[in-house]
Amino acid sequence: MIYCTVNGNLFDATKATLGINDLALQRGYGIFDYFKILNGRPIFLEDHLDRFYRSAATMRLPVGFSKEAVKGMIHELIEINDIPDSGIKILLTGGYSTDGFRMGVPNLVITHAPLPTYGSFQINGIKVITHRHQRQLPEIKTIDYLMAVWLQPYLEERQAQDVIYHDGKLVTECPRSNIFIVTKDNRILTPAKNVLKGVIRKQLLNLEHRYPVAEADLTLDDLYEATELFITSTTKNILPVIQVNDRLVGNGDPGPVTRSLASKLDELIYEIQHTVD
Amino acid sequence: MIYCTVNGNLFDATKATLGINDLALQRGYGIFDYFKILNGRPIFLEDHLDRFYRSAATMRLPVGFSKEAVKGMIHELIEINDIPDSGIKILLTGGYSTDGFRMGVPNLVITHAPLPTYGSFQINGIKVITHRHQRQLPEIKTIDYLMAVWLQPYLEERQAQDVIYHDGKLVTECPRSNIFIVTKDNRILTPAKNVLKGVIRKQLLNLEHRYPVAEADLTLDDLYEATELFITSTTKNILPVIQVNDRLVGNGDPGPVTRSLASKLDELIYEIQHTVD
Repeated sequence: MIYCTVNGNLFDATKATLGINDLALQRGYGIFDYFKILNGRPIFLEDHLDRFYRSAATMRLPVGFSKEAVKGMIHELIEINDIPDSGIKILLTGGYSTDGFRMGVPNLVITHAPLPTYGSFQINGIKVITHRHQRQLPEIKTIDYLMAVWLQPYLEERQAQDVIYHDGKLVTECPRSNIFIVTKDNRILTPAKNVLKGVIRKQLLNLEHRYPVAEADLTLDDLYEATELFITSTTKNILPVIQVNDRLVGNGDPGPVTRSLASKLDELIYEIQHTVD
Repeated sequence: MIYCTVNGNLFDATKATLGINDLALQRGYGIFDYFKILNGRPIFLEDHLDRFYRSAATMRLPVGFSKEAVKGMIHELIEINDIPDSGIKILLTGGYSTDGFRMGVPNLVITHAPLPTYGSFQINGIKVITHRHQRQLPEIKTIDYLMAVWLQPYLEERQAQDVIYHDGKLVTECPRSNIFIVTKDNRILTPAKNVLKGVIRKQLLNLEHRYPVAEADLTLDDLYEATELFITSTTKNILPVIQVNDRLVGNGDPGPVTRSLASKLDELIYEIQHTVD
């Protein structure tokens, strides 16, 4: 049995429920964050909790528990569930609404599950398609994945593993990942505007590396002309992209810059995972 | 006690729940519809059910119950709850997801509550503000009201009762209502594109009236230059708008065309409500 917590109380995750008048269910109003547990240890937890509390504040959702209390719930789940390599999701909803529209007192739901894996895609890279869409309130990690879920069957039809959003000119992000390109002159660039600023993205922007990583406005043409392309997220770390729509990226294989960054990032995460507090 | 149904089964509405892994909660994925019960009789039920099944199909959510079965649940609630003037909401969620992202088998939740009323606003009209925003998948009645809920405190600050979305040039709709203007030459116009096509909107487009109601592209300037302005919805019928941002509409009072349309619509609904089948 895997446990979760609802407002600080432990439940069997398969039996935990929320009332039907919660504003997340009724109006899609809520925020969340998600981080990895490796070797029983949360990775980049402070970054994720900081972003969670920022998302909550911007959405005017009081968390109702201190950061220390939330950490307590997280460590309780890590201990009781004992899934060494796993992911924890903290979800804060709009709460029980009296009229189906106004916010109530937010519900805090923390769930814990094994990590998804990307199989051979992690090494060999994925195919993406592009879709014109701008996420609303993009810098907040809301539960709004309407377009992303809706596009799933279309992706499967096209045998693509992910989708890159753009506004007709500039590209922004994938539904659950940030985008990076490597240019002909070995600059590594990632969009700066109208994106959710991922924790792995932040790590890469701060990483010491032969080629500096920088923010820039990126067009669809920049994407097509990139020598390498990859996406980043908490579960994916660095995932190479080898095809955009019908065009291969470079020669259609993951490139050396992507591989070198991925191994740098792996080292960093390995260190965190094995550091003794 | 007010009852609701979850997948066809009756529950005390205050105790009805859904599991925390439903995709509506996790990813804001779901659709709904809402209609009025007057004098114990559903108003424009066929229109609402048709739209509900259309929304579901476009979102790739199988309803799992025939239209007749859903009508059965509706009539069961009308009878058992006995709230003569009320509203019924039919909600279809993305269902229990095994990985927090893929759709499951949708959950169908039908809730029943007294009608909201708009007090003196119904007669005297409301103030609206404008906000640049385009709802995603606008022609589907999804549960995505993230922006609308988020804007609530801002509306209260501005002492406005509603918000009109626009794209910088063209206006579209309010979060839960359609927009109509009356022009200087007495044309009644409503935006045609990128809006949810309301059932009251459809009734007005088909209504026999001295001034024909038509679809048109409307700019922000059209809004400011309108002699009258009103919004429509299932709960509001026709609600006059007397101020947009800092500008009065006409002389700041509900106008004669709005009043005449509202009384025509009231007549139509009165007839339905009292027709013997």
